Amino acid sequence: MTTHSFPVTLPPYKAPPTALRDEMLAAVKFDPAGLVTAVAQSAVTGDVLMVAWMNREALSRTIESGEAWYYSRSRKSLWRKGESSGQTQSVADVRIDCDGDTVLLLVHQKGVACHTGRPNCFFRAPRDGKLVEIAVPLVDPNQLYRS
Amino acid sequence: MTTHSFPVTLPPYKAPPTALRDEMLAAVKFDPAGLVTAVAQSAVTGDVLMVAWMNREALSRTIESGEAWYYSRSRKSLWRKGESSGQTQSVADVRIDCDGDTVLLLVHQKGVACHTGRPNCFFRAPRDGKLVEIAVPLVDPNQLYRS
Repeated sequence: MTTHSFPVTLPPYKAPPTALRDEMLAAVKFDPAGLVTAVAQSAVTGDVLMVAWMNREALSRTIESGEAWYYSRSRKSLWRKGESSGQTQSVADVRIDCDGDTVLLLVHQKGVACHTGRPNCFFRAPRDGKLVEIAVPLVDPNQLYRS
Repeated sequence: MTTHSFPVTLPPYKAPPTALRDEMLAAVKFDPAGLVTAVAQSAVTGDVLMVAWMNREALSRTIESGEAWYYSRSRKSLWRKGESSGQTQSVADVRIDCDGDTVLLLVHQKGVACHTGRPNCFFRAPRDGKLVEIAVPLVDPNQLYRS
């Protein structure tokens, strides 16, 4: 019996033809602000790494380049994951959900996904009656974002 | 080398004391509409099953009951996953991300997670130049939602 789905076994990512990219973009229902929820999951471990937002341009660039791009609501701008930190995400697969309001990226994460230096962003959980950090930083965030 | 993190090995879920539940609720930053993104992931396979929304009450009920509750923006009401379909989600872990705007539920999914009868909602992906369905329904949706 298979008890896990990871690592995923897929051929290396190849940018799709323009028509397919447009079909994918058309399959996504962007919200009134023009955004869609994007989940990045490790194609190797299956860990959910982070959740962020994409606008149409971010998704289009992600599909075309095979590198994860997102949209920052606070900075109101596109960003390529790892552009500051070097902790990039290479796309293995782009999956769209049943109602088109979430995109799942299977990615190969370089280094760590979280800006805190932890492997992923979901490191707070209840343990023994306390809300604790279940992962420690593997990298000093000051090293990730030094200028 | 560990290449996957699943199945997760955690003791059976136990509802936390009220103070811890309140600490968890306080760690979450609900958006101006009072909602937070919730990702449900299989604790067994690691598959991302679905993404939905929670308000404070949905998260509180989830933490207390160990069963996944969400908030429907279209119906403007709380719903317990599986209340119509029987395809419930038992919680194995509740994790909060670095900035508190996403909750990750590790769950034991009964049956299928998607209302289409597929194991999870992320079944559309590009393959060989086409956007295709990479999973088939395991259950007839008419059977899931018959009255």
